[in-house]
Amino acid sequence: MMRAVNLIIHSFMACLLSSAHAINPEPLLDYCIADLSSPYTFNGPPCKDPNLATPDDFATSALSKPGNTSVGKFGSSVILTTYQNLPGHRTQGLSMARIDIAPNGLVPPHSHPRASEVTTCLKGEILVGFVGASNNELYTQQLRAGQIHFLFNLDEKRPSWAVSGLSSENPGAQIVPLSTFTSKPPLPDVVLKKAFKIDGQEVARIRQRLEG
Amino acid sequence: MMRAVNLIIHSFMACLLSSAHAINPEPLLDYCIADLSSPYTFNGPPCKDPNLATPDDFATSALSKPGNTSVGKFGSSVILTTYQNLPGHRTQGLSMARIDIAPNGLVPPHSHPRASEVTTCLKGEILVGFVGASNNELYTQQLRAGQIHFLFNLDEKRPSWAVSGLSSENPGAQIVPLSTFTSKPPLPDVVLKKAFKIDGQEVARIRQRLEG
Amino acid sequence: MMRAVNLIIHSFMACLLSSAHAINPEPLLDYCIADLSSPYTFNGPPCKDPNLATPDDFATSALSKPGNTSVGKFGSSVILTTYQNLPGHRTQGLSMARIDIAPNGLVPPHSHPRASEVTTCLKGEILVGFVGASNNELYTQQLRAGQIHFLFNLDEKRPSWAVSGLSSENPGAQIVPLSTFTSKPPLPDVVLKKAFKIDGQEVARIRQRLEG
Amino acid sequence: MMRAVNLIIHSFMACLLSSAHAINPEPLLDYCIADLSSPYTFNGPPCKDPNLATPDDFATSALSKPGNTSVGKFGSSVILTTYQNLPGHRTQGLSMARIDIAPNGLVPPHSHPRASEVTTCLKGEILVGFVGASNNELYTQQLRAGQIHFLFNLDEKRPSWAVSGLSSENPGAQIVPLSTFTSKPPLPDVVLKKAFKIDGQEVARIRQRLEG
Amino acid sequence: MMRAVNLIIHSFMACLLSSAHAINPEPLLDYCIADLSSPYTFNGPPCKDPNLATPDDFATSALSKPGNTSVGKFGSSVILTTYQNLPGHRTQGLSMARIDIAPNGLVPPHSHPRASEVTTCLKGEILVGFVGASNNELYTQQLRAGQIHFLFNLDEKRPSWAVSGLSSENPGAQIVPLSTFTSKPPLPDVVLKKAFKIDGQEVARIRQRLEG
Amino acid sequence: MMRAVNLIIHSFMACLLSSAHAINPEPLLDYCIADLSSPYTFNGPPCKDPNLATPDDFATSALSKPGNTSVGKFGSSVILTTYQNLPGHRTQGLSMARIDIAPNGLVPPHSHPRASEVTTCLKGEILVGFVGASNNELYTQQLRAGQIHFLFNLDEKRPSWAVSGLSSENPGAQIVPLSTFTSKPPLPDVVLKKAFKIDGQEVARIRQRLEG
Repeated sequence: MMRAVNLIIHSFMACLLSSAHAINPEPLLDYCIADLSSPYTFNGPPCKDPNLATPDDFATSALSKPGNTSVGKFGSSVILTTYQNLPGHRTQGLSMARIDIAPNGLVPPHSHPRASEVTTCLKGEILVGFVGASNNELYTQQLRAGQIHFLFNLDEKRPSWAVSGLSSENPGAQIVPLSTFTSKPPLPDVVLKKAFKIDGQEVARIRQRLEG
Repeated sequence: MMRAVNLIIHSFMACLLSSAHAINPEPLLDYCIADLSSPYTFNGPPCKDPNLATPDDFATSALSKPGNTSVGKFGSSVILTTYQNLPGHRTQGLSMARIDIAPNGLVPPHSHPRASEVTTCLKGEILVGFVGASNNELYTQQLRAGQIHFLFNLDEKRPSWAVSGLSSENPGAQIVPLSTFTSKPPLPDVVLKKAFKIDGQEVARIRQRLEG
Repeated sequence: MMRAVNLIIHSFMACLLSSAHAINPEPLLDYCIADLSSPYTFNGPPCKDPNLATPDDFATSALSKPGNTSVGKFGSSVILTTYQNLPGHRTQGLSMARIDIAPNGLVPPHSHPRASEVTTCLKGEILVGFVGASNNELYTQQLRAGQIHFLFNLDEKRPSWAVSGLSSENPGAQIVPLSTFTSKPPLPDVVLKKAFKIDGQEVARIRQRLEG
Repeated sequence: MMRAVNLIIHSFMACLLSSAHAINPEPLLDYCIADLSSPYTFNGPPCKDPNLATPDDFATSALSKPGNTSVGKFGSSVILTTYQNLPGHRTQGLSMARIDIAPNGLVPPHSHPRASEVTTCLKGEILVGFVGASNNELYTQQLRAGQIHFLFNLDEKRPSWAVSGLSSENPGAQIVPLSTFTSKPPLPDVVLKKAFKIDGQEVARIRQRLEG
Repeated sequence: MMRAVNLIIHSFMACLLSSAHAINPEPLLDYCIADLSSPYTFNGPPCKDPNLATPDDFATSALSKPGNTSVGKFGSSVILTTYQNLPGHRTQGLSMARIDIAPNGLVPPHSHPRASEVTTCLKGEILVGFVGASNNELYTQQLRAGQIHFLFNLDEKRPSWAVSGLSSENPGAQIVPLSTFTSKPPLPDVVLKKAFKIDGQEVARIRQRLEG
Repeated sequence: MMRAVNLIIHSFMACLLSSAHAINPEPLLDYCIADLSSPYTFNGPPCKDPNLATPDDFATSALSKPGNTSVGKFGSSVILTTYQNLPGHRTQGLSMARIDIAPNGLVPPHSHPRASEVTTCLKGEILVGFVGASNNELYTQQLRAGQIHFLFNLDEKRPSWAVSGLSSENPGAQIVPLSTFTSKPPLPDVVLKKAFKIDGQEVARIRQRLEG
């Protein structure tokens, strides 16, 4: 038995997408400017010498322009604040995303391994849905919102866009159809056939369409 | 010796305000709908029976309308997602805020005891500043962004507004001038006199203006 | 671009399945016996009066017998230590699972929102695979193991079984094909069609086979 | 509406100063001796080769002598255990402070971004106060102790001193009057004028007295 | 191969005792006054209605008088701040202890399951020691300070005393000789005989002396 | 007053050993392959370039063969997954152990400073016990499971073995008799004499037997 929650958000309605809990290191410095030139990675890049920090390290215009929704297969674009475009958010436990969706475009079902998400629709009408985890005898008492969620622009004519807060400096994202059908090396056909109850031709067809 | 960082953000430039680290309970349920009717508080309200959850628990229109900037003393308004308006975000480790600032209005210097913040200016030109913690012999090597920060609408004619993500479900806020001069009971005059190097009349005058 | 890792484990080879980070409350008591009779849920059940604890609260035979792999659609069974069968593990941050897989049976692609996993094959030959998260411009430098993983019994004649440690008292599980195709209410067809690049008939067929 | 708590502690009465939650990395080594010679900072200095550790790394006499209360503007001195004087406390999540206050001296209102604090008065009579965070519609049901706190030596003739435990290896400190009036670069006058409801001359006067 | 660190601390030398990492819930309220009358325990007592908080909830004189070192078998006394004597420190992640040791008295080898400790000798000369964990092939590269530590008053004539900060609101303590030889029910003799390489008579003798 | 819990587990009964809470860094990468060649240690080894990861980094046969129970003094062997034999489990918050015990062999009383443990007996009959922490006035209301635990093979003829999950990537272990009697440098005799109420000859004898 499964549960799903679908709801429509429009202009400036905030919607919670429940995902995995924020996973962040607990900062011991008032801040850390990510030093991407370092050869070392300890659960993320090290900190630059704080004396070299500038106001630019704390601001970005990465989200200022709409993303290109014609790239990719789903008619959507997600731009995230990162160490690269906002070095000062290293160890701050938070990112912000701009989501642009073409008419009837889709942010396909995906999950964030390291972040919860709150999305605020700024323009248009977006269908937001998230799927509950499969119930088994452990959880029969509980409805549980899942991590797999999607956003779909219900408007057939106009693009819509939204802003999300994500509770990790590096939330990660795993897009379900790509993870299952277009990984390299591919998942063995037998696994996909048994998992989705499809035959080898269907596996090949889905794969080809998602990769092609 | 002190350090401060001031920068101007305009339309859709994200700005990081470094504050205390996100403080959140680690969820053991896929989600928790805050049950505000419970007599018990264990580091926040308990969870409602998940079987009673509805899509409404995951969406809010609290941020959809501009806040009233004529209330209060500083020409600004902050509306936050909360257990009350978005019950589903209990244990999700994240909130979202809408900040409206009247022309030349101010969100006064304040800090969030339990959250980092990323602010995105959606309209207008906002001066954002944060002050570094006082240096002492422990930290002489470091410039440190502080928690005390403010937002000021540089535009003398038009309101501006912004969206913030905060990395706690209950970030808290402590507004410096109110905390120091208008607490009840008040801080002893001798403390304020010695702290700000002002005399009793100045203490009384500031108090009266902030309270009056 | 995606990455996947497939490997075969046989008798008593341990295999790490990287999943979301363990999510657990930090205990303030030497232990907590889950009190499932309580009407309250605060990030899990409350603790029983510790004076009523007995050795039984710390042991379980739930894993002692093979699970029934003929129930369900994939020829596999997963039995987990839980508050119900091992009350003493509340707040201990760990569970253990017994996985039985029929000949050519499958534990379908799934993820654990709140736990890492280490699996030890005790009998037979199991193909274990996990898929890397989709790369985007944030992560181009990194190969990342994902959370979506599966186990497949390569042996056509004999069952195999394994033991897993999971780093959460309540790891959760989200089985990809069921989450996407058999949730209730269902994900809108348009979403599945666009996500998997299949038509409505294929959506219906997959759904029916997984539900039927 | 604000709330403040003022209380007097004398010889060996412990007093809790509620501040931000302890922020510490979770150690994976039994200990870590801070290696201050390393060019890298990953949320703090790296660990020295443990084989080079000596008993000296775990003891300090930094707190053995009274601090000089005639330096600085407030007639008080705070000495903290640090990586420098107690290298072994890296990753231990705790520091200890010695606080000396001259007759009628003041530890001005300040907050610790990363630590709770328990203060124990060892000699004299100290007025300890902390201010509650400003209430807004989110918190109207709650009195909340704040982070901004101060210590004042009520004795006009004799110095007093105290010991504090702080729940972080690097608690940080932000002294309100210095953060607001003497940062470099300074907060814009307009911000201070609007925040404290004072005119430009008052801003200049306070600044000069605190800096002079 | 084992390692131990012994050092002498005298008047006001701080000494770090490395123990398990602080284990605390992350507070979502500015504070929580422990409500010991509640029937429920969720990783500690719930919070009282904050509106009922008083200054008394934040101060205690529990540490003001020397403990009675003639009670117990080791000539020492440890008094800790607790929910009972300092209700306001619930969820603050910190306690403070007063340790009194009679001439040649001992705080026997013990460990704190949930806290690091920093001890400051206020009077006398105390030998502080802690034992490194046993090395095995996993850790041959590392010297590791352990959790098992003791304090011994080297002075044969005068009592000494110290203050400790502990980085948990409920650090716990496990005194090695009592845990191994005087538990109820007792550890099986065979276990103690094999563990300490002693015979049954020695087991009985030690037990009797520690219990008698 | 002490409490202990002893119970017998046989074939495939899981038994919880409550120890300190899992202590792990919160990962910000989907995984981290321990780079043991690095000169730096920041709460554990850094991560290898993820592009160099191979399936081998996620699997180990270290647990596939019985450990040698004739080495060491107690007739038991514990083999753990480590950075060395399973590099991919760095930052995963979990290890797995294989425990082999000769007839009437003992895993002596010990504690894990950084992990909870769940043990599953795969063959034979093992007596598992853990001792409650000593009670003092803080905890009189509570029975508390302790960290000090042991495993004893009740079978006089056949070896037994078990698998444990431990909730840390580096749980650590401190074996009580070795920590107290065979550390280098040794604990002062006076401490052991007073702690265990034995005389100097008994201290010497126990030491010699455990070291010899």
